[in-house]
Amino acid sequence: MHTEVVDKAEQARAAATYLATASTEAKNKALRLIAGALKKRSGDIIAANARDLEQFKTSPGFSKALEDRLMLDEERIAGAAEGLLEIAALEDPIGEVTGATLRPSGLQVGRVRTPMGVIGIIYESRPNVTVDAAGLTLKSGNAVILRGGSEALQSNICLVKIIQEQLREAGLPETAVQLIEDTDRAAARTLMRLDEKVDLLIPRGGPSLIKAVVENATVPVIETGAGNCHLYIDEGADKEMAVEIAFNAKVQRPGVCNAIETLLVHEAVKEKVLPAVFSKLHRAGVELRGCPCVIDYHEAVKKAVKEDWGNEYLDLILAVRAVSSIDEAIEHIGRYGTGHSEAIVTADYRRARLFLSRVDAAAVYVNASTRFTDGNEFGLGAEMGISTQKLHVRGPMGLKALTSLKYIVQGSGQVR
Amino acid sequence: MHTEVVDKAEQARAAATYLATASTEAKNKALRLIAGALKKRSGDIIAANARDLEQFKTSPGFSKALEDRLMLDEERIAGAAEGLLEIAALEDPIGEVTGATLRPSGLQVGRVRTPMGVIGIIYESRPNVTVDAAGLTLKSGNAVILRGGSEALQSNICLVKIIQEQLREAGLPETAVQLIEDTDRAAARTLMRLDEKVDLLIPRGGPSLIKAVVENATVPVIETGAGNCHLYIDEGADKEMAVEIAFNAKVQRPGVCNAIETLLVHEAVKEKVLPAVFSKLHRAGVELRGCPCVIDYHEAVKKAVKEDWGNEYLDLILAVRAVSSIDEAIEHIGRYGTGHSEAIVTADYRRARLFLSRVDAAAVYVNASTRFTDGNEFGLGAEMGISTQKLHVRGPMGLKALTSLKYIVQGSGQVR
Repeated sequence: MHTEVVDKAEQARAAATYLATASTEAKNKALRLIAGALKKRSGDIIAANARDLEQFKTSPGFSKALEDRLMLDEERIAGAAEGLLEIAALEDPIGEVTGATLRPSGLQVGRVRTPMGVIGIIYESRPNVTVDAAGLTLKSGNAVILRGGSEALQSNICLVKIIQEQLREAGLPETAVQLIEDTDRAAARTLMRLDEKVDLLIPRGGPSLIKAVVENATVPVIETGAGNCHLYIDEGADKEMAVEIAFNAKVQRPGVCNAIETLLVHEAVKEKVLPAVFSKLHRAGVELRGCPCVIDYHEAVKKAVKEDWGNEYLDLILAVRAVSSIDEAIEHIGRYGTGHSEAIVTADYRRARLFLSRVDAAAVYVNASTRFTDGNEFGLGAEMGISTQKLHVRGPMGLKALTSLKYIVQGSGQVR
Repeated sequence: MHTEVVDKAEQARAAATYLATASTEAKNKALRLIAGALKKRSGDIIAANARDLEQFKTSPGFSKALEDRLMLDEERIAGAAEGLLEIAALEDPIGEVTGATLRPSGLQVGRVRTPMGVIGIIYESRPNVTVDAAGLTLKSGNAVILRGGSEALQSNICLVKIIQEQLREAGLPETAVQLIEDTDRAAARTLMRLDEKVDLLIPRGGPSLIKAVVENATVPVIETGAGNCHLYIDEGADKEMAVEIAFNAKVQRPGVCNAIETLLVHEAVKEKVLPAVFSKLHRAGVELRGCPCVIDYHEAVKKAVKEDWGNEYLDLILAVRAVSSIDEAIEHIGRYGTGHSEAIVTADYRRARLFLSRVDAAAVYVNASTRFTDGNEFGLGAEMGISTQKLHVRGPMGLKALTSLKYIVQGSGQVR
């Protein structure tokens, strides 16, 4: 067992007991204080971040894309602070009582929403996750143990120091937000196996990080992220709508999990729709990889190989396949999809309902872009990531996803 | 990877796709047919069970208590059949739409209740779990992979054969209920790590079984069972009520998880309450183990050792400790409790609320016996066990606990 992790988990546990009954006002005050301090201290944060960036330049894992994710500037810090103010404005989920009933025994049985307790977050590069995660866990009455990547260590130390100072200022335990400073695997592994002290683990990052957590954790995990999303253009679909949605779902932000990776097209409309889709995507720089039946609709289309169907490109690449029926489309999605976001463009009422009921994913769309899978777009406010598992929560994880429901039972001496 | 397990999981996966949209009527018909067939074929079941019992007699793990758990007779089979009819009478949770809203984007976003998909159950001895689990998973639209203990293998094979025949009779896929016949650890281990094919794993059994599943599983797990439950008698508590609840919570059925293992008593009432509590419990055969401050209130009280506070006896044994305040009681429960069921007897409004809000357990009681933590008593109908984790579900797991919520998003061409 790794001493730093165990000690910090014990401190977080004690803080969680306190936070569970902290007032909404106290939590919001802390969020506002942290937001103010982040902006005021942005110079310190940027200086710490510069040390991370300097070190990262010589790291074997260096890439321009990762460097951009790691970088903090005034604007990003202001954005993170703004995010905290938005979290402060959200309704406090704690204490809500649901489904209270009077049972034949005379007992009044209800459920009250409580924090999880201690939440562990294991994540990579982006230091603004540090701020978001601290804000969401704080508002939902949880203590948090953050384990960021080594590349962002100086930034994270600086951010957590500011957060802890403001927690103290707000009269809350500063140990409610803990950073594991040892970025070795052994520390992460201890965190994953502390099921007696940690109630929930959320990995945020690439497939290998998530796999390592799922493989090793004894703490309950919410899997996030992987999105091999599809758009199916049904027979009789409106051509303009199909082109716009395909374009938006692929191109608007190709590097995120709710962008599509494969386009499925009913063979009855491929001739009508694909030339326009292909030429618009090609002009936007999208590499097209198609099955033999679609390859002739644009000169730029390359031949897809089997691996294309299972690939989450997160890039300007799209696999395209013609299908002979909606059943074949649903079957393809069932085989290759990761249960994230799946969409149909159709004008047919029955097939719209069929797609909604038969496709097994966190979010299933009719006539809209998969890019809407997002806490704000779904009305949850800020989110802690997008769950692709079925246990506890599917889709965007807002504040409620960080809570649990306990039974409260009020009697007058009942025995069985 | 274990071939039998992988093959059966794949068949279960296919069956789950079908079951997800099966009608309530079809599912209820199957439940009623199975109930009828169990009663009609009780001779076959008892014969198979007799072979298990015969073999178990010579097993190194033999005990009278386990033999009783393993045994099936006409009455128990009729009870299991009755349980299926009760499940048929419960409302079908699948298809319920919650929280549908129209977003500023014009999208209608709602959540629809869906089955989990494929649920794995790893359990010990009691073959009636086979019937209960098949019934609950079927009604909630899930396929199930059952992995019972070796001691009940013949009984389970016979029961699952009858269940599968009646599924076919009802027009549902018989592969919706699968039994892993290889009772070796390797088979269970494969099941625990099939996260690509199994959506949820529920272990039902003793602490070592549950620990093995939590340690090894990559499939999401719901932990069930361990109940180190407490009753706290507050200062000023009504004496009669305190005696009745203490007696009921300990004695009515000591071998179950919602029975109490420790009694905490405020020192201001110990003199008033403990002599009556102790003599009533002693007459019922309860072994009493007390801290030094309570040991003198009855001649039969032995001295408790530190291990007593963390022990789930599941037997006619009770640990007793005096505390100087409700805070000390809550702290004791926080340290030794397993988050199952915790109760206070009090006449004080403020302390009742304090106990309800501060004690972190699946079910927290004021002035009632912990023995009420049960699906039927809480109005959920039959249950799949009692969850002691916070993720997804806490407390009794009814049909809804075997479901998930997916987002359905209906638009008219929206893009971001």
